[in-house]
Amino acid sequence: MMVIMKKDATAAQIDHVVDRMEKVGLKAHLSVGEYKTVIGVIGDREVIDRLPIEVMPGVESVIAIMKPYKFVSREFQSENTVIDVGGHKIGGSHFAVIAGPCSVETDEQMERAGAAVKEAGATFMRGGAFKPRTSPYSFQGLGEAGLKMLAHAREKTGLPIVTEVMDVRDIDVVCAYADVLQIGTRNMQNYSLLLEAGKTGKPVVLKRGFGSTIEELLMAAEYIVKGGSREIILCERGIRTFEPMTRSTLDISAIPVLKKLTHLPVIVDPSHASGKADLVPPLALAAVAAGADGVMIEVHPAPEEAWCDGPQSLDGPTFAALMKNIKAIAELLGRSIGE
Amino acid sequence: MMVIMKKDATAAQIDHVVDRMEKVGLKAHLSVGEYKTVIGVIGDREVIDRLPIEVMPGVESVIAIMKPYKFVSREFQSENTVIDVGGHKIGGSHFAVIAGPCSVETDEQMERAGAAVKEAGATFMRGGAFKPRTSPYSFQGLGEAGLKMLAHAREKTGLPIVTEVMDVRDIDVVCAYADVLQIGTRNMQNYSLLLEAGKTGKPVVLKRGFGSTIEELLMAAEYIVKGGSREIILCERGIRTFEPMTRSTLDISAIPVLKKLTHLPVIVDPSHASGKADLVPPLALAAVAAGADGVMIEVHPAPEEAWCDGPQSLDGPTFAALMKNIKAIAELLGRSIGE
Amino acid sequence: MMVIMKKDATAAQIDHVVDRMEKVGLKAHLSVGEYKTVIGVIGDREVIDRLPIEVMPGVESVIAIMKPYKFVSREFQSENTVIDVGGHKIGGSHFAVIAGPCSVETDEQMERAGAAVKEAGATFMRGGAFKPRTSPYSFQGLGEAGLKMLAHAREKTGLPIVTEVMDVRDIDVVCAYADVLQIGTRNMQNYSLLLEAGKTGKPVVLKRGFGSTIEELLMAAEYIVKGGSREIILCERGIRTFEPMTRSTLDISAIPVLKKLTHLPVIVDPSHASGKADLVPPLALAAVAAGADGVMIEVHPAPEEAWCDGPQSLDGPTFAALMKNIKAIAELLGRSIGE
Amino acid sequence: MMVIMKKDATAAQIDHVVDRMEKVGLKAHLSVGEYKTVIGVIGDREVIDRLPIEVMPGVESVIAIMKPYKFVSREFQSENTVIDVGGHKIGGSHFAVIAGPCSVETDEQMERAGAAVKEAGATFMRGGAFKPRTSPYSFQGLGEAGLKMLAHAREKTGLPIVTEVMDVRDIDVVCAYADVLQIGTRNMQNYSLLLEAGKTGKPVVLKRGFGSTIEELLMAAEYIVKGGSREIILCERGIRTFEPMTRSTLDISAIPVLKKLTHLPVIVDPSHASGKADLVPPLALAAVAAGADGVMIEVHPAPEEAWCDGPQSLDGPTFAALMKNIKAIAELLGRSIGE
Repeated sequence: MMVIMKKDATAAQIDHVVDRMEKVGLKAHLSVGEYKTVIGVIGDREVIDRLPIEVMPGVESVIAIMKPYKFVSREFQSENTVIDVGGHKIGGSHFAVIAGPCSVETDEQMERAGAAVKEAGATFMRGGAFKPRTSPYSFQGLGEAGLKMLAHAREKTGLPIVTEVMDVRDIDVVCAYADVLQIGTRNMQNYSLLLEAGKTGKPVVLKRGFGSTIEELLMAAEYIVKGGSREIILCERGIRTFEPMTRSTLDISAIPVLKKLTHLPVIVDPSHASGKADLVPPLALAAVAAGADGVMIEVHPAPEEAWCDGPQSLDGPTFAALMKNIKAIAELLGRSIGE
Repeated sequence: MMVIMKKDATAAQIDHVVDRMEKVGLKAHLSVGEYKTVIGVIGDREVIDRLPIEVMPGVESVIAIMKPYKFVSREFQSENTVIDVGGHKIGGSHFAVIAGPCSVETDEQMERAGAAVKEAGATFMRGGAFKPRTSPYSFQGLGEAGLKMLAHAREKTGLPIVTEVMDVRDIDVVCAYADVLQIGTRNMQNYSLLLEAGKTGKPVVLKRGFGSTIEELLMAAEYIVKGGSREIILCERGIRTFEPMTRSTLDISAIPVLKKLTHLPVIVDPSHASGKADLVPPLALAAVAAGADGVMIEVHPAPEEAWCDGPQSLDGPTFAALMKNIKAIAELLGRSIGE
Repeated sequence: MMVIMKKDATAAQIDHVVDRMEKVGLKAHLSVGEYKTVIGVIGDREVIDRLPIEVMPGVESVIAIMKPYKFVSREFQSENTVIDVGGHKIGGSHFAVIAGPCSVETDEQMERAGAAVKEAGATFMRGGAFKPRTSPYSFQGLGEAGLKMLAHAREKTGLPIVTEVMDVRDIDVVCAYADVLQIGTRNMQNYSLLLEAGKTGKPVVLKRGFGSTIEELLMAAEYIVKGGSREIILCERGIRTFEPMTRSTLDISAIPVLKKLTHLPVIVDPSHASGKADLVPPLALAAVAAGADGVMIEVHPAPEEAWCDGPQSLDGPTFAALMKNIKAIAELLGRSIGE
Repeated sequence: MMVIMKKDATAAQIDHVVDRMEKVGLKAHLSVGEYKTVIGVIGDREVIDRLPIEVMPGVESVIAIMKPYKFVSREFQSENTVIDVGGHKIGGSHFAVIAGPCSVETDEQMERAGAAVKEAGATFMRGGAFKPRTSPYSFQGLGEAGLKMLAHAREKTGLPIVTEVMDVRDIDVVCAYADVLQIGTRNMQNYSLLLEAGKTGKPVVLKRGFGSTIEELLMAAEYIVKGGSREIILCERGIRTFEPMTRSTLDISAIPVLKKLTHLPVIVDPSHASGKADLVPPLALAAVAAGADGVMIEVHPAPEEAWCDGPQSLDGPTFAALMKNIKAIAELLGRSIGE
């Protein structure tokens, strides 16, 4: 950490800051410039974190030098993490396609959706049984009945199941059916849920909060690591900006930025980012081209009949056509889909 | 709801949209313009919500006319909600000042903080026993031991206690000590927590998510109503913007906007919004002047020793000086502090 | 336009709104719902625009139905505009690559840059002679001397020149040398400059303001049309958001959104969006995959020696490697580079 | 400036950075931490600015220590700038109220508006003769005819005139009539206009760009200083955020932040920030309470008849009522209105 003192900071103020640091075991290193003095601080991160230096007299600002996350960083592990779910891999050279409807509705719907995504080449299947909805009056998901339909679909397709968990009290029932847990954008900083998800040992898809920075996403992943798991898939799904034409603004730069900062796989959800089916194919292709390790796409056998998020769901044939281009660009850039 | 058809929408496409509406019991009303046809839809909100009209051929866009929230709206209840916590009121002409340290640290700290805020005229006391921290390596709060210290402080000061609950599993223990529950910015869309908080019957301070719109804040309050409580205090605490000089941008306009849309009391937290102690007094006064029903301010007997958020905490004398101006402006605008 | 009346609007208030509309020649169309009345308005756009309906008693809100832009819209012209600059095309199936240094520095630098970008396959050359700099103390460009160096580089490479004009008083001198004018992000709503640029008859690259919406970008283009030119190339270059890891957030969704709304070519500037050289290749490829009609990339023969924007400039070999992937993805999606 | 080297930066890379600095006359100061080396740089700001250090091998990031602005900073001048326009003062203890219609329409309108704002206690009069409009099809202002009407209104009221200039070619004609020039939000980074406005010697109201940071606002002011004038009034008028309920989000924190960083007067425009008349009074009072040196408010004798921005204009009686509260809060905080 570097502490920038004010131009008119007194010697006594500088001494006071240094004293406070040394009292808690930190090392201070003075650098006296023409106009301003800068104090470098070395020592234990948590100790530094707890010292309210900004508040001390004469201090202008405090600048962090060390990254606040540790186990998820490239500095901690330089090689890419590859997650293997029953032979279905994600990370490194393995590009994953997670597809399926927004919400699980009926066995028949899941069967049709499963057949369509499997046939087109998806490597994981998704579907929501617990749905976080902005309105308490909207359909909230089928719960365990939906999880059973997901399990049936897995039997038919052989594809592992990714599904959301919203409440710590539902962790056990979701784990009884799911292969991969999903933590949604609204729960990215639900720290109890992150810790509990980490304890299950299941891989976790962690969606970026729509109002959260890239650094906060990495800190949220660090909570899952603290819980006990390192099999984390980070998912960019759009952030809130002033542009009203799309539901969120897909932060495509987050892909190369994250790939530099962390060894974890990074995927993109173009369906929730845009909220519109016709924007999904160009955004999915952009994600592949920008170096993502996978995409998560909403596919419904009949979007016009969907119980939720119909407007952003692709139908089977559109998804199949998109898959051809995803595959071609992925291969061009040295990736293979799935295994 | 109004459905705007594309300029080149065919008669068959228009008929199809109308048919789909009528099949589920909605009434459609055609308005044929020179360039475009607009279809008005009347009927049950949840039925409308479930129909993916945007996805139907020929549809350009869909515009909601009805507000998506109900019980919290001014249209539902025109007079201001006044919440009374053991004689300490908030709402209507009653302006509330909730003050205290970010985190509960020791009995001695709480005693000093309590004396300072009581003496200066605060009407509620705050303090965190469960702390949502961005980093898993930061201090996470004292838990139940902290709640006990809060209860001791209440005994000494007579001020009701506001404290955060982060996990549905902690609801009971928090309710055993707290007078008012607080739901933090990161949990504004933790729907399980909202429902459970609503079931307790305790008043709830609901903080706006830093990436959430005013409408989403009202929808979150609607979840608490669904849980069972109507004693909700909405709290503006800053939103994420591109401006880096402050931790968040306090959305001061949210106060008059919310006062127009809802009958619930609206308060402001200038401490978390700005993250800097010297910005707290001007922002607190701005909140009073803009018509807020209260403020929530971090006060610590010794900010330089605080275990968390020291840089944004006021010390006792600064808080006391601020209280004089808060009181003067509040009275000028027809409010009284507390009772 | 649709006018939503308040739930408790009186008949007199509704009549007043209708009267005011009819007095200026507009047609009003009432739609009386169970809860609210909606008034549809038909008539001349500029007349509607001038009537302050929101301010009339009983009005809740006003919703525009018609798009505010005209000549640049797909509804006005369905086929893609293709711009031809001496045989170098952009738009439709023609993908353009505009490359070169941020600022023109010396004849030798331009010669080396020109050779590198030409060799790698760029189809236009860029370079700044008038530089809009945040600080008045930064290098502001060489002015006409720089334009002459650009012209020399054109002689050597045969590539048309794209360069920025910042001041209406410089239009003539810039036109004496440039093939394509560029209007920068800070000047997107400098309406005098837009009108004057339109009068020159030269094609114009119009960069999106970093704080401007897609609709405002289209309205700015409409000013150029009003000036007299329809040869406009829209350029997405990132918008301001809360994410600090990149200088701006590239709004990749703007590409498919714009391609739907307008017939004009849409290009992307990944260099200014990210501000970091290592992010330029993934973002450039994402732009191609998302359907852009071109990219604009900063290339410098020796980024470490650049007078401005060195950190975001690619060197020759990195640019050449990137061009191979750009070409491959463009061709995969049915585009050819240049002619 | 501080240069943070990567964890694995080699000694040769560190030497190279230091060499490059020393070659251009800068002093480098090494600070070798346990994990990372930090290089402090001292020397001429413009020389530092021109060296692309981020691009050098082994460099992780570069952090500025010195503020990029100079003459407008509190460090350069600690006492508040007070601007005196014919006895009407702004800055220090002098609170200014600038009021009048959005656009000048007729002599009669200006006379009525002038009488109303003078009577209520405004200290400056505003009105637009050159109007920057998002649409080329909207009313663009009366030009010189409007300036003449402004001058007539000044004769009647004795209030100095503030009016916008949008084009460097209009500077002379605007200066022939105006007392104070206004540079609008869209032109905050129109550097030619800033320099020319600075040359006139007239005081300038500089509005913050709706997509610009506080630091950029100060840099824009620095351009006016470079042009030749130090009589600059900074104006916060709202920034773009994701919240759609208001046209922009008034950044109320910008007031205390600016008052700390600069000696220039800071005013607030609640009319353009919110876009809605009923939000203007609470926001204006918030600005006074937060320590602004003035407010700029749109007042129209008949908002329902206004040629532009009717929905955000106050009528005379509403403005007069607001003035009473503005005056009371200003005086409470030690300010006097006008002289």
